[in-house]
Amino acid sequence: MRTPAAGVTLASLQAGVQPRLEKVKHELRRSVASDFPLISEVNGHLLQMQGKMFRPTLLLLAEEASGAQDPRAERLAAVIELTHLATLVHDDSVDHSVLRRGMPTINALFSHQVSVIMGDYLYSRAMVELTRLDDLEPMRVMARVTNEMTVGEMRQLMAHEPLDFSEYEYDLLIKAKTASLLSAACELGALRAGARERDALRRFGEQLGMAFQIVDDLLDYTEQETVTGKPSGNDLREHKVTLPLIYALDRLTPAARAEVATLMKTAEPDDTQISRVIALVAEAGGLDYARGRGQRLAEGADQALDELPPSPARETLRDSITYVLDRRR
Amino acid sequence: MRTPAAGVTLASLQAGVQPRLEKVKHELRRSVASDFPLISEVNGHLLQMQGKMFRPTLLLLAEEASGAQDPRAERLAAVIELTHLATLVHDDSVDHSVLRRGMPTINALFSHQVSVIMGDYLYSRAMVELTRLDDLEPMRVMARVTNEMTVGEMRQLMAHEPLDFSEYEYDLLIKAKTASLLSAACELGALRAGARERDALRRFGEQLGMAFQIVDDLLDYTEQETVTGKPSGNDLREHKVTLPLIYALDRLTPAARAEVATLMKTAEPDDTQISRVIALVAEAGGLDYARGRGQRLAEGADQALDELPPSPARETLRDSITYVLDRRR
Repeated sequence: MRTPAAGVTLASLQAGVQPRLEKVKHELRRSVASDFPLISEVNGHLLQMQGKMFRPTLLLLAEEASGAQDPRAERLAAVIELTHLATLVHDDSVDHSVLRRGMPTINALFSHQVSVIMGDYLYSRAMVELTRLDDLEPMRVMARVTNEMTVGEMRQLMAHEPLDFSEYEYDLLIKAKTASLLSAACELGALRAGARERDALRRFGEQLGMAFQIVDDLLDYTEQETVTGKPSGNDLREHKVTLPLIYALDRLTPAARAEVATLMKTAEPDDTQISRVIALVAEAGGLDYARGRGQRLAEGADQALDELPPSPARETLRDSITYVLDRRR
Repeated sequence: MRTPAAGVTLASLQAGVQPRLEKVKHELRRSVASDFPLISEVNGHLLQMQGKMFRPTLLLLAEEASGAQDPRAERLAAVIELTHLATLVHDDSVDHSVLRRGMPTINALFSHQVSVIMGDYLYSRAMVELTRLDDLEPMRVMARVTNEMTVGEMRQLMAHEPLDFSEYEYDLLIKAKTASLLSAACELGALRAGARERDALRRFGEQLGMAFQIVDDLLDYTEQETVTGKPSGNDLREHKVTLPLIYALDRLTPAARAEVATLMKTAEPDDTQISRVIALVAEAGGLDYARGRGQRLAEGADQALDELPPSPARETLRDSITYVLDRRR
């Protein structure tokens, strides 16, 4: 494995595809445009909170790295981002979240009703855009992935019983919930390439996506919040069981396990409880273990790229692995 | 126009396609099957509360009446019913309904979370089934309709401001919310037929669907409940403005309009308020007007059928108009 690049930023990943990303944003705005006032209003907020365009970036880089040009890439990238937005809107509604990336969520700004309907609206717009491409292949990929993500969401609902939730189930959860869409983004970039390149990019995206979610779950245990200077522990607060805890649970003393069980039964655990369980998980090696798994997945993603012809885009995809491993929120 | 058949029941409409409807149910069960326990459990409830299969019945009859056989009809009918189930699950979640057809809703039995995710699951299963047919045409129809229905749901959210809600907007609402899926069912039955037959069936379905919703909205004003012996007035209770009220509003005295406005501002209007507004709407001719519009739409649906070759299925589709006009809940 090559030496990882230091200090990879999203901007550095996007530099080479910036003009194409502008086209994707244009497609996105065109696609969701509606003459219905409430929909336009919600769209306005959604496009404002519009995120980092990480999935469209992967799709465009994958297309360039696949060795086969596809004039539909920008439109496919818009479909991927639309689908991503739809899942965010429904997730926030399911979780009753009030903030996302520092902006109020649709359910907070409007209502639960508007969130459910707006998520459906975005999904159906994605489908309409797909049918306009006159090709069943991207529809097959997206229908499969959309279904997989809903199963992932169901798994998430079940991930609240710590003693019953295994690493195997966690893997299934993060594959379905997160990796499936990143993998689809990479695969959709390679629809015009050979089976070997398409499969390599699909596998690259899946391992990158799993690493992405593991890093996200780790940040909840490690990243200091600006106000408190302590890790947020939000997952623990919401009784969500992620990899660090799953690993630690088998290695805790009975007394420490009982502390975890108490937290999981407390409707609103206080900061002392949270800090204490974070410390227990760290001592039992849960954080190191999760970091190690993220690293191994990153190596797998890197190896998948070796099957592609050398190109600047392939090296930027390699940099995206470093970006995923090193990122902060 | 022919003399309407007396006493048409759903069973009489379905008699000729019963063996095919069994195949549709089989397809439906196969399609939603999941090895994930929570999904199977929710499916169990959904298939139990499974409704009258009116949309699949229309699709199968439309296929027979179109003059062109389509071996995919049962699978398309399953897709239509899956999509219908998905909208019911999300509608019940949006409305916080606890009962549907006398059975507890998914949000009541499980949770709001499960409803949102399960609706997404059913939509995505419908998409997966469609991609398996290897034909873009039914995908185009379903993507368009799914999008239209979400816009209809948004319109529904806006239909709570009585003085601002016009008959024109009501028509747009019922077309999008109800008629679009019934129209799609009829159109999907005619995919292998000529453009003339396909268009006739699409128009038949649209007018039948609009009549269907008008009758539904009328029943809220007219059908006596078994316990109270009075109309339910549930739409008024939830501040939903439908055709009888829209027509009446322009014809009420200022004092009567003020009574309506008061009801619409009362969070939980009592039975006296409801009965009083129902009486005002009836006196102003709102019920007669809505019946008349239902009748005119029914005639339009009937005329659309004249463009099809004569067949027993065509006559059964004519009977379905009577069924829609005469039905009780």
